[in-house]
Amino acid sequence: MSFKFSTEVRVRLPETDAFGIVFHGYFYTYFDVARMDYFRNLGLVQQTHPILAPCPIVHASADFRSPARFDDVLVVRARISEIGGTHFTFEFEVAHKREGRPVATGKTVHVSIDGKTWRPVRVPEEFRKLIRGFEGADLSEEGLRH
Amino acid sequence: MSFKFSTEVRVRLPETDAFGIVFHGYFYTYFDVARMDYFRNLGLVQQTHPILAPCPIVHASADFRSPARFDDVLVVRARISEIGGTHFTFEFEVAHKREGRPVATGKTVHVSIDGKTWRPVRVPEEFRKLIRGFEGADLSEEGLRH
Amino acid sequence: MSFKFSTEVRVRLPETDAFGIVFHGYFYTYFDVARMDYFRNLGLVQQTHPILAPCPIVHASADFRSPARFDDVLVVRARISEIGGTHFTFEFEVAHKREGRPVATGKTVHVSIDGKTWRPVRVPEEFRKLIRGFEGADLSEEGLRH
Amino acid sequence: MSFKFSTEVRVRLPETDAFGIVFHGYFYTYFDVARMDYFRNLGLVQQTHPILAPCPIVHASADFRSPARFDDVLVVRARISEIGGTHFTFEFEVAHKREGRPVATGKTVHVSIDGKTWRPVRVPEEFRKLIRGFEGADLSEEGLRH
Repeated sequence: MSFKFSTEVRVRLPETDAFGIVFHGYFYTYFDVARMDYFRNLGLVQQTHPILAPCPIVHASADFRSPARFDDVLVVRARISEIGGTHFTFEFEVAHKREGRPVATGKTVHVSIDGKTWRPVRVPEEFRKLIRGFEGADLSEEGLRH
Repeated sequence: MSFKFSTEVRVRLPETDAFGIVFHGYFYTYFDVARMDYFRNLGLVQQTHPILAPCPIVHASADFRSPARFDDVLVVRARISEIGGTHFTFEFEVAHKREGRPVATGKTVHVSIDGKTWRPVRVPEEFRKLIRGFEGADLSEEGLRH
Repeated sequence: MSFKFSTEVRVRLPETDAFGIVFHGYFYTYFDVARMDYFRNLGLVQQTHPILAPCPIVHASADFRSPARFDDVLVVRARISEIGGTHFTFEFEVAHKREGRPVATGKTVHVSIDGKTWRPVRVPEEFRKLIRGFEGADLSEEGLRH
Repeated sequence: MSFKFSTEVRVRLPETDAFGIVFHGYFYTYFDVARMDYFRNLGLVQQTHPILAPCPIVHASADFRSPARFDDVLVVRARISEIGGTHFTFEFEVAHKREGRPVATGKTVHVSIDGKTWRPVRVPEEFRKLIRGFEGADLSEEGLRH
């Protein structure tokens, strides 16, 4: 598994807690930042009308390896690892930039829905094509299994 | 100046920071909680259709007297101190419940707007009447100055 | 699997996002609130010296079933489902109080560590006893498997 | 009043609320980011030991001119406008980068304290010198009034 995209975040004071480390829930904020930057990198976010394409999260998980502290710079790697019929999966790796050590890994699963009915719909072919082109052979795709 | 309404919040871990105290920005969250509870107490929040009446904040300020820490219970007193032509002012006092000491005071100024045009409109008479009835002589009102 | 403990949270405005629903990362805040309330219910949180016993989270996951919105009251059920050698697992169920519908489920895994060396240590016998007494037969325990 | 320093933040999804705009309390997070970047720019933040020099906030206020939305890039200008005996004042201006319009202004007042006793102490001469050198004639300083 390789990551072709990464972005960076610097830990802000309100993201730390009384234990002196980043509260684990804020890693989902970092994942969200990385997701948007990933889409932006692929031209999927327009400057004047940011895509608020509803692809709600149905699952999110993370493993925490080592703590991140105030003002640390974190490298957040992101990739779409899988596209199913009506969902797709993001995977993340967070590392401490200066020290190189792994901080966290994570995964979010998104459902492709119709903007009007909010019912699940097939992940659009245009989106599949774009991700396929970017992720290449690392992408596991439902359509390719048949 | 007396407060006729108060509510309580317990400090959550992600509201504290690496200094071991509540990050100052979260007091505006506590003020928002108190504001909703204040309106709920006056019957202004309906269970099935919570009022999202747009009365945007144009000013917010706070003075911080002493720190609040993880798991502390805070008493948040709230009152509408003033109603002007198109705005109204909330005032807050936060105290440490067990120790009694003052933690913070604050103020937010809200503009009454038309839900469609988002233009400022006169604070509705019905709202004035209700607040006047609750706050009594402590309320400073533009309408009463003339 | 039954839950013997539950607590409630009311959705605050800053916990919602531009999609009009609770940002998924904040459910980990709700889980944290429930965890503290669970411990408090068992007498593990002292009023004057809140236990900041370091039991860092090494894994957190959640499944999201339906959205929660501003001012919704959520019931958060919590239980310790498993105690291993040096870790223990919390499970959560979040339901919409008024509508009854399931909103989310979640799981967090915690490591028991030495407060000085931050090295993993065996989950203390006193803690096991207390949880065993509260959770009863629903608790899966490493010590009981041998 | 001119600003000699500015930094940028991009609005994250969890910073927006159900009204579709940045929750006002998060502007204090942006101010905090700008403050750290301001200090970093002056060499006051060491990479390996980030200064957690305790200079607690005793006052914070903000005026909100226009809304900021998801994914907007905001320019945050920061300056130290005043140094008193034991306190100093930061001022902020937030503008929408692409549209140029003013979004918010703000102010935070910090007390210089002794790291051990947490009692107010005179703002160190070294700090005054550095800020004086950077802000120049725009800085109002207590020491210069005598």
